[in-house]
Amino acid sequence: MTRTTREWQAADAAHFLHPFTDFQALAAKGSRIITRGEGIHIWDSEGQQILDAMSGLWCVNVGYGQQALVDAATEQMRTLPFYNSFFQTAHPAAIALAETLAELAPPGFQHVFYGSSGSESNDTVVRMVRRYWDIQGQPQRQILIGRHNGYHGSTMAGASLGGMAAMHAQGGLPIPGIAHIGQPHWHEHHRTPGTPEERAAFGLEAAGWLEAKIQELGPENVAAFIGEPVQGAGGVIIPPATYWPEIQRICDRHGILLVSDEVICGFGRTGQWFGCQTFGAKPDLITFAKGVTSGYVPLGGVLVGERVARALIERGGEFEHGYTYSGHPVACAVALANLRLIRERDLVRQVREDTGPYLAQAYAALADHPLVGHAETCGLMGALWLVRDKATLQPFGPEVGIGMACRAHCFGNGLIMRAVGDRMIIAPPLIITRAQIDELAARIRRCLDLTLEQAQRSGWL
Amino acid sequence: MTRTTREWQAADAAHFLHPFTDFQALAAKGSRIITRGEGIHIWDSEGQQILDAMSGLWCVNVGYGQQALVDAATEQMRTLPFYNSFFQTAHPAAIALAETLAELAPPGFQHVFYGSSGSESNDTVVRMVRRYWDIQGQPQRQILIGRHNGYHGSTMAGASLGGMAAMHAQGGLPIPGIAHIGQPHWHEHHRTPGTPEERAAFGLEAAGWLEAKIQELGPENVAAFIGEPVQGAGGVIIPPATYWPEIQRICDRHGILLVSDEVICGFGRTGQWFGCQTFGAKPDLITFAKGVTSGYVPLGGVLVGERVARALIERGGEFEHGYTYSGHPVACAVALANLRLIRERDLVRQVREDTGPYLAQAYAALADHPLVGHAETCGLMGALWLVRDKATLQPFGPEVGIGMACRAHCFGNGLIMRAVGDRMIIAPPLIITRAQIDELAARIRRCLDLTLEQAQRSGWL
Repeated sequence: MTRTTREWQAADAAHFLHPFTDFQALAAKGSRIITRGEGIHIWDSEGQQILDAMSGLWCVNVGYGQQALVDAATEQMRTLPFYNSFFQTAHPAAIALAETLAELAPPGFQHVFYGSSGSESNDTVVRMVRRYWDIQGQPQRQILIGRHNGYHGSTMAGASLGGMAAMHAQGGLPIPGIAHIGQPHWHEHHRTPGTPEERAAFGLEAAGWLEAKIQELGPENVAAFIGEPVQGAGGVIIPPATYWPEIQRICDRHGILLVSDEVICGFGRTGQWFGCQTFGAKPDLITFAKGVTSGYVPLGGVLVGERVARALIERGGEFEHGYTYSGHPVACAVALANLRLIRERDLVRQVREDTGPYLAQAYAALADHPLVGHAETCGLMGALWLVRDKATLQPFGPEVGIGMACRAHCFGNGLIMRAVGDRMIIAPPLIITRAQIDELAARIRRCLDLTLEQAQRSGWL
Repeated sequence: MTRTTREWQAADAAHFLHPFTDFQALAAKGSRIITRGEGIHIWDSEGQQILDAMSGLWCVNVGYGQQALVDAATEQMRTLPFYNSFFQTAHPAAIALAETLAELAPPGFQHVFYGSSGSESNDTVVRMVRRYWDIQGQPQRQILIGRHNGYHGSTMAGASLGGMAAMHAQGGLPIPGIAHIGQPHWHEHHRTPGTPEERAAFGLEAAGWLEAKIQELGPENVAAFIGEPVQGAGGVIIPPATYWPEIQRICDRHGILLVSDEVICGFGRTGQWFGCQTFGAKPDLITFAKGVTSGYVPLGGVLVGERVARALIERGGEFEHGYTYSGHPVACAVALANLRLIRERDLVRQVREDTGPYLAQAYAALADHPLVGHAETCGLMGALWLVRDKATLQPFGPEVGIGMACRAHCFGNGLIMRAVGDRMIIAPPLIITRAQIDELAARIRRCLDLTLEQAQRSGWL
């Protein structure tokens, strides 16, 4: 269908209610129409090339236009486009993917429960952990603990596990039986850079909030703790190295299940197959989505560790839960091709040993910029904290909307970088090269310069 | 990957936790491995051809092997396999599908909110209707009313809207703010066939349960009523013609939003594009999934009627909800090809005027079978109620497991028919021909005969 940008925008405004959007404001402005992708770039309907430093939405990890994934989808769709696995049936794609996931997962994970999204996967976790405790004869263990500014999807239960205040303000969230603790976010609490020692101490302190919450609720009532190794939607909040091992110790001490939400961190993003490996935690459940198919087809799921799996299998009877598209054959076939590609190209090691460290260097250089209060990376995730005064780390007021201002410059200059409050974040495709990281850093610097000029002109400083 | 059935079964049992399954029992028995599909048939790893009278799981409406859908997926995946629509961006596939859906939907539906499944769509409804009432200045309208034995998916909120007792028994369901009324299921209450007048009266009586529940809860606290036009997973429960118009009047009287869950009934299943058109209701929201893509790629969503859309758009500000895969380009491209095929082949009219009535005749003939207490169809959905005594409509006891016994004979004889308690149900692909309906009816009769023989042998009668 050939149409002008304006025609697409009109049809868009007339019919498509976008996620997380002020519909009227977007209609007045008009959407940008993305028409194709190749490698780490996308193009809009005006022909502008854009470096997609967000991998679509944390998912297109092998980049756009990977023929092996297309071929896998085509072949599977021709052979068996769908079949269910409810009624004592299975099909090769879902089985083969489950095997592969068990191979790639940390030790102790042999089973997978499928959904089609991170939301469905985290939603599944609520029922699965409660069912586990029922089977253990501790049905009073109902409460799951998440974190403020954590993100676990947008179903009612997923949004409840998450700690996004704006989401909780609509629709009667959170649902009962879910508690929240603070996030391990140094700059939320401190206006100093922090020495390594101070940050390490803060990691223990932040993990201690879990201990305190468990004591408050009564350990015998707590089913599980859930967290993202690095908080993604929250603004690429990278915890101190001390944090996750201490969380692990606290969960172990009280016998509480630990759930690692790897929807963003999974499949190489942090330089290991799973973020919990980077941060030294041994979860009981791992949720995944996005990177498992590089977003080419919707797929998600829960990797179920032996502790929970054995209970469900051996003493659980029927688990009364599942989705029509649990183990969708086309999604599973694409995931298999995607994981094969990641292995063949050794992308996880590349992130860990080459491009991740190289991005870290580039970000260390960007830290010099007058607007940047702090720059940090983990694998191929990065965050720049934009501040009014670099010396004192005084932030901009929320009325300035510094992040949105910066994002607008990115939009206008061929770069997708996401704004979360005053944090500018990236998560580029894992195939990005050193040369492309140079290009990315140059574009970021240019957009920071433009933002600074605007801030000076507008009297925001 | 070439493997024996036994090898696939071993890998399946070792790694794949199936939906709604007793994992241990299935592992002991071994899954049936489905390897390919074509038209209305699938094949297992032993080479047996099976007539799939359940369309996968109510979804493969255009049948297996439709090249137009494969081509659409291949083309879109090559061009733009994914992009998000969160940050003021859109892409042609999602826009074009939203336009097409607005064209096909009943009058008054111009907008769509996307998800990837029926579960996500119904989950979205809870927050959307509550947000609507917030905007209307009636935030106390929090309660949604569903029905016992209704099915609205398997997220926490979806399973709560549904009324499946087995699901509610695991994981702390339902969540608060959801109430249930009885289903319009004649034989749940009556051991007679019922005259047309009696059934019409029953339809009004069953709708009246909604009025009673609203009065009990206080109309000012009720946000919405949700129901499937025909309950699918509940056992193809076809309501009397009087039911839905009366439900409509009750909702109108109290200003309550009406939500039609068209995940199964949508896109031609009942002989109209949407089941609410067959049953004479004018809902405010329509949820869909399955048939929109014929299951080739996961896609779902909510058609948002003008009453709700105008409020959200004009006075709602940002709607704090959405999924990464909301409007997934590949899913949307496949949906467009699927809907085009349904239109080109005039399948909706065919179901309404040709194959639907022909299936009804075939079921009328099956009603003679000694095991069949009642046979009914609606469009291309059908149910056979198996009873111990045809004359008195005395049912089998649940200890017999008559449905599972019949299903086993179907399995063994090249037919997929689903058992819901003592109801055997079908929903064959909409492309099924008269000749194939003859074949279907013959296979069903043979399986009923085998079930009857077993019942006689086993002393169940």
